[in-house]
Amino acid sequence: MDQVNNDALLPWQWPEDTWRGLVNKARAGRTLRPQSWPGGAPCAVALSFDSDHETNELRDGGKSIGRLSWGQFGNRVGIPRVEKILDRYDVKASFYVPAVAALLHADEQRRLVAAGHEIGIHGWIHELNSVLPYEAERDLMMRASDTLTSITGVRPVGMRTPSWDFSPHTLRIAVEMGLEYDSSLMADEDCYELLLDGKPTNVVELPVEWIRDDAVYFMMQRFGQALRPYTPPTDVFDIFKRELDYALEEGGLFQLTMHPHIITARSRIWILEELIRYAKEKGAWFATHAEVAAYARANAA
Amino acid sequence: MDQVNNDALLPWQWPEDTWRGLVNKARAGRTLRPQSWPGGAPCAVALSFDSDHETNELRDGGKSIGRLSWGQFGNRVGIPRVEKILDRYDVKASFYVPAVAALLHADEQRRLVAAGHEIGIHGWIHELNSVLPYEAERDLMMRASDTLTSITGVRPVGMRTPSWDFSPHTLRIAVEMGLEYDSSLMADEDCYELLLDGKPTNVVELPVEWIRDDAVYFMMQRFGQALRPYTPPTDVFDIFKRELDYALEEGGLFQLTMHPHIITARSRIWILEELIRYAKEKGAWFATHAEVAAYARANAA
Amino acid sequence: MDQVNNDALLPWQWPEDTWRGLVNKARAGRTLRPQSWPGGAPCAVALSFDSDHETNELRDGGKSIGRLSWGQFGNRVGIPRVEKILDRYDVKASFYVPAVAALLHADEQRRLVAAGHEIGIHGWIHELNSVLPYEAERDLMMRASDTLTSITGVRPVGMRTPSWDFSPHTLRIAVEMGLEYDSSLMADEDCYELLLDGKPTNVVELPVEWIRDDAVYFMMQRFGQALRPYTPPTDVFDIFKRELDYALEEGGLFQLTMHPHIITARSRIWILEELIRYAKEKGAWFATHAEVAAYARANAA
Amino acid sequence: MDQVNNDALLPWQWPEDTWRGLVNKARAGRTLRPQSWPGGAPCAVALSFDSDHETNELRDGGKSIGRLSWGQFGNRVGIPRVEKILDRYDVKASFYVPAVAALLHADEQRRLVAAGHEIGIHGWIHELNSVLPYEAERDLMMRASDTLTSITGVRPVGMRTPSWDFSPHTLRIAVEMGLEYDSSLMADEDCYELLLDGKPTNVVELPVEWIRDDAVYFMMQRFGQALRPYTPPTDVFDIFKRELDYALEEGGLFQLTMHPHIITARSRIWILEELIRYAKEKGAWFATHAEVAAYARANAA
Repeated sequence: MDQVNNDALLPWQWPEDTWRGLVNKARAGRTLRPQSWPGGAPCAVALSFDSDHETNELRDGGKSIGRLSWGQFGNRVGIPRVEKILDRYDVKASFYVPAVAALLHADEQRRLVAAGHEIGIHGWIHELNSVLPYEAERDLMMRASDTLTSITGVRPVGMRTPSWDFSPHTLRIAVEMGLEYDSSLMADEDCYELLLDGKPTNVVELPVEWIRDDAVYFMMQRFGQALRPYTPPTDVFDIFKRELDYALEEGGLFQLTMHPHIITARSRIWILEELIRYAKEKGAWFATHAEVAAYARANAA
Repeated sequence: MDQVNNDALLPWQWPEDTWRGLVNKARAGRTLRPQSWPGGAPCAVALSFDSDHETNELRDGGKSIGRLSWGQFGNRVGIPRVEKILDRYDVKASFYVPAVAALLHADEQRRLVAAGHEIGIHGWIHELNSVLPYEAERDLMMRASDTLTSITGVRPVGMRTPSWDFSPHTLRIAVEMGLEYDSSLMADEDCYELLLDGKPTNVVELPVEWIRDDAVYFMMQRFGQALRPYTPPTDVFDIFKRELDYALEEGGLFQLTMHPHIITARSRIWILEELIRYAKEKGAWFATHAEVAAYARANAA
Repeated sequence: MDQVNNDALLPWQWPEDTWRGLVNKARAGRTLRPQSWPGGAPCAVALSFDSDHETNELRDGGKSIGRLSWGQFGNRVGIPRVEKILDRYDVKASFYVPAVAALLHADEQRRLVAAGHEIGIHGWIHELNSVLPYEAERDLMMRASDTLTSITGVRPVGMRTPSWDFSPHTLRIAVEMGLEYDSSLMADEDCYELLLDGKPTNVVELPVEWIRDDAVYFMMQRFGQALRPYTPPTDVFDIFKRELDYALEEGGLFQLTMHPHIITARSRIWILEELIRYAKEKGAWFATHAEVAAYARANAA
Repeated sequence: MDQVNNDALLPWQWPEDTWRGLVNKARAGRTLRPQSWPGGAPCAVALSFDSDHETNELRDGGKSIGRLSWGQFGNRVGIPRVEKILDRYDVKASFYVPAVAALLHADEQRRLVAAGHEIGIHGWIHELNSVLPYEAERDLMMRASDTLTSITGVRPVGMRTPSWDFSPHTLRIAVEMGLEYDSSLMADEDCYELLLDGKPTNVVELPVEWIRDDAVYFMMQRFGQALRPYTPPTDVFDIFKRELDYALEEGGLFQLTMHPHIITARSRIWILEELIRYAKEKGAWFATHAEVAAYARANAA
């Protein structure tokens, strides 16, 4: 792909090579949907929490004391409330933690690992990958992995890009680092193998979706973009439950992305508990993202 | 209309010729609402899917791997899920496909045509017509038609402008190409004849409406415009059903625009199935946009 | 108020004269809430329709054929649907019509006046008053009044500023034109007298509210501001009904602002009909804005 | 923290000192959640109203007559409607009033204080603290305190920053002024002690949350940011009630922020009344923010 040519032309003027090259950069390959789940479970449930805490504001300059306090809420109130529920139902989940958030709240990460949860890579300070040069992105991702390892004693095997912002270099870096999976893309509802410039990478994609992200409905941004928590919690529960019901019907994967300072609000935390209770009742297999990815790769149809 | 004059003045300073000229550019003429539908059906139902796939991101530069993966979802999961439902209820529908999306997914288009569905023109790479010079718009629309024809073996008879962005030249080009209908405008709920600078064109308009478009309620845009899927699926179903009920009451046309990567989500696909089931039960006439346009022109009251 | 001084300083640096002057420009004076309504009705209902039609797009340059077709829908489908309902329940209402929309659709205005409805001033081409110099605003408002008079044979006695955009000169111009009322401001739910720089004007304000405006919930804007019709019609009905119920309880005024291309959609028109039916059942007094304003002035407590 | 260094680097390039310094500027310290509430009440309820009135528009230049009239509504209709309900249920609440709003509506403030309610500091003209130099912020906050004192005869003991916009200097100024509490931050749901650069200040934080703010769901902004009151009142009630129910379950604090021109609309005022009725029925302790802060400090577990 000739980048110079690409940038000089408008998309409707591009030659076929240009748009084919872009589409093939990082793409879904063969499906990794297993024929059955462990113990004959009717579906798999992979819960995840992006523990951004103060980095949500730091990445933008860190000037708002109010938003920094919102970040602290995630550690002070949010994570303990999540831990209580996961413990009550004996469910293991995945936490994606920017390195700076892990350094600010090292005890939280150790406690989670001790309880059997997974900690995955989530950037250095929740930076956007797509505006970074390759070297900086690579350096930050490696330092993030090292930081999490030195705090928890366990090296992460998977990642989620901050804001699901996957750059043209992200997959190549993941391959170089030997990561087993990513969870930031959306080409399917079930796991698949990622292709780099058309070639299989052995990296599993455990797909996300905006539909299954609490921030989509509940985020508040006072200035700039007009984001407000317009959707009532009862409707958000209904949406998540419909996603889960169809996964049960198909024998597929139900993956959910949450944020400690969002889902744990007193008016919302019941959504998480009720989903877990309902899926448990149906016999779903609960697992960390790492476990789901490993199982999917080992048991692809 | 003196374009120079027009551009130098503010709208409240325009002479009457200016605003009359703008209003008359492409306007609704005589109604083409038939007195009755085939077989005495109580209403007509025209379902459409805009299969934009990766062109949704390519048209804007193609830099987001995440949004490209969303586009691939349309082909990988979305269209097969739509096909299954249309097949189950034996319903034929219309698919509007940018040429680049058709080239990326040629098999999909051939499969749809083989099953009796219609493929209509939807631009080259989902470009905005209103920012193109006449020559470029004309060239892209003609190449799009040729591309679809060479892939499917059938020449399209109708079009939908990408983003419903109808330029001052679009109607003239449609006339030059001998197209039978367009489906991008909103001056009525039933078919009508389009006037070009006040003169009948014989081109049928099969009107759309934002109200009957899934993306309006469900679109997500992380950066830039703050779009979020705030409206619960149950409410979207209620809106679509009210539109359908009134069409049934009036003996009119119920037209619906959907997108493969949006309506097929596990929490939403039931909306489509339930609408079809309900309209079938009421005895509605299901037809492609081309069939509705042809029938409306032949049977205008 | 020293405008130069005002513009050179930031609001928190303003002297008291500056902010007092701004607040006093056009303000609510004595209440004109009557002790009772004609015939002992429990409340008054004033329905209004802003018949902007194509001027909604013309005011911004008139370049979108799609939005112009949306405007034509207002005349072609919207107003006839409204007329049918008003006629069925024998209700008189007020239509605010930009002069250009009246010139494009003169028959519509004559038909409405013949049926006993009111036509009020709504600018020349739906321009924003606050960006006009005094002379231009005055000229456009006077020409608008003359245009409506020459089309319908009746001189308007009231006005609604386009987009409720009331400039610092609007009230002065209304006084100069001898208008009896305005309906664009929000300092109360019942009628009041407007003060110009602190002095009574004898002009009645018949207040509006965003809460009682269909466009607030239903407007769609594809580009620029991210407006989507996120609120379900059933909820919009619930909001309007709660406003009406409280007016019934208080013996106050229920004023509603609608738009022909918005409220008349097949999935929404029932809201208008059901509100009328319900208020009729409760014995409400239906009147045009001109009638309510005249009654309020003559019967202020 | 080296500010020069900080500004020259992008957040992902910051040294550890920089992000640690930002996070520590004003942070949550020890919890001040009491073991029990007065009289063994199951929870505390702290209602607040931000009486911004015309300052909502004046702070932005004061050019919109319409938005100024909206502000006047707060004084003319809103506050009296609130007073009636608080009086009916014998509930005391806190009103945060910009000095300019207090000067425009001095009688309102005196009436509220006479009825036993609290008036707290809310800036001079609802300015944003984060764009002010330290000296200006300090001067405005002190003049605001003096103005409220001279109008009501009572010196405020607490504050709420306008728009919850807490600058890096706000806490230091609050300490210098000897304020007992702030109510603008969000690191917890219960009271806590604020730390300034890591050191205890003895200032109580009585936390707010966007979730418990009426403007979040109901604000309307015609131009600029696309804010619309998309969430139905019944859903807003449901959200507030869920927050209250969980506070009851935990024995915590339920704090609510409202605005006189928003919550008092005829279709919304029932939300406030119904919440009070429900909490009264449950035996909650209603108190002003000042009373809650004092009790929390005196009875921290």
